Amino acid sequence: MTSAHPFDIATELQPDGADRFIGETSSDYANMVGPFGGITAAVLIRAIEKHPDRLGEPVSLTVNFASPIADGPFAVCTQLVRTNRSNQHWIITLQQGDAVTTSATAVFAIRRPSWTATEASAPDAPPADTLARQEFPDFITWTRNYDMRFAEGGPSTIAAGTPAGSAATVWVRDLPARPLDHPALTALTDIFFPRIMMRLGKFVPAGTTSLTVHYHASATQLTEHGSGYVLATARANHFGHGYFDQTTRLWGLGGTLLATSSQMVYYKEPPSP
Amino acid sequence: MTSAHPFDIATELQPDGADRFIGETSSDYANMVGPFGGITAAVLIRAIEKHPDRLGEPVSLTVNFASPIADGPFAVCTQLVRTNRSNQHWIITLQQGDAVTTSATAVFAIRRPSWTATEASAPDAPPADTLARQEFPDFITWTRNYDMRFAEGGPSTIAAGTPAGSAATVWVRDLPARPLDHPALTALTDIFFPRIMMRLGKFVPAGTTSLTVHYHASATQLTEHGSGYVLATARANHFGHGYFDQTTRLWGLGGTLLATSSQMVYYKEPPSP
Repeated sequence: MTSAHPFDIATELQPDGADRFIGETSSDYANMVGPFGGITAAVLIRAIEKHPDRLGEPVSLTVNFASPIADGPFAVCTQLVRTNRSNQHWIITLQQGDAVTTSATAVFAIRRPSWTATEASAPDAPPADTLARQEFPDFITWTRNYDMRFAEGGPSTIAAGTPAGSAATVWVRDLPARPLDHPALTALTDIFFPRIMMRLGKFVPAGTTSLTVHYHASATQLTEHGSGYVLATARANHFGHGYFDQTTRLWGLGGTLLATSSQMVYYKEPPSP
Repeated sequence: MTSAHPFDIATELQPDGADRFIGETSSDYANMVGPFGGITAAVLIRAIEKHPDRLGEPVSLTVNFASPIADGPFAVCTQLVRTNRSNQHWIITLQQGDAVTTSATAVFAIRRPSWTATEASAPDAPPADTLARQEFPDFITWTRNYDMRFAEGGPSTIAAGTPAGSAATVWVRDLPARPLDHPALTALTDIFFPRIMMRLGKFVPAGTTSLTVHYHASATQLTEHGSGYVLATARANHFGHGYFDQTTRLWGLGGTLLATSSQMVYYKEPPSP
């Protein structure tokens, strides 16, 4: 008998009437406060995938983290706003009791073959097996479920107290390895620690407020990718007035761009004197 | 007597009970089908700004264009999901009759001074007054309300039938000139024509499906910017399976990054033979 992957346990949902699913936080994906944001975003995509009226595959997802999710059960409520011939628009909320902890929108669509081109360039990085697996502090529990091998910009800059640029490049996959799908890809867009900590070379209170994922890979492409490493890059454009942005690109085998994302992250750090 | 600016007329909203505003499409901002997406996004930001319970300034906005907006009146319905100590989460829909044409989420926050840095670099461009104002075909009505001066990647590549890269750099401001505010900045993130047309050097059926704006400038910074030109850049990362992404950066005076955006755009172009 094979036991379920921690990711599948953490994103498991039971239908509870029309447009409502029940899930439960998993201690495997705990962050410092509440669950890892990436697993919450993955749960929302999984809810739509499980919906009987769902059409196609994810095109875009925006998740707004309104308040911490407490350990325990939660409800995912879905509202199908509109179904067009080839795409579909959803509003999603994650609720605990009467409180909406997370609001989101998603666009799904039938992804047909079309003219194809990639303008962005995949970064250069040494092969994953030539890099050491990054270790993280025990209290960031969710990192145990990822095999991350940094080619650039790992968390050692924080530990060393060395201010640096915000760019990072990392090979990453689920641990244990697991075939890539859209929920898992969604979670991977949120694996990067807040860029402000790299910039300042120290711990800074920070948390993602809004995450947007744009999906480039079809389900077929993810199946072809399998359980291999994804090459992920992150950087920031601007820090100011208590928020910075953090953009990522996720690359698959053969330089296939799987997804891009951008998030706005709250941080608390006074102006330079 | 000074007559109102076309932008202010097009984004005018009247309260219609709690959490509902009534507006009307403006022929000045008509696109080929329905209004210019940027003006619709601006209307949604304006609705929250006018809401009596609104806290702070925009941090992020995601707009999903579910179906065309018909000429005539519309309702903007707002739902305040949560107010925290310094930020606020909204779900917004634009409705005509029983149909939701547009769904959106927004995060607003009190933007306090903090540690500040910009990593992205503003592009080089000749001064705006050394470049010619771009003319557009009459049927793209909304372009009449913008003074655009392309330093790179203008629409002439389409007219010439010349395939090109997707990058563009343009000086842009409202026409007539108008002091910049968050609704106007929102609209500016959507002024770029679909990148697929530059890539292929021809007209291709295309339309924005989902637009996310991340706001870096505070209201005070926008007031300081005044009615001068914004330097805007756009590019695409990937085209495939009927959707491509299109990212923008909007720069103000002195290299201030005002906003960044990313959108997913539907297009119809068969695979290369």
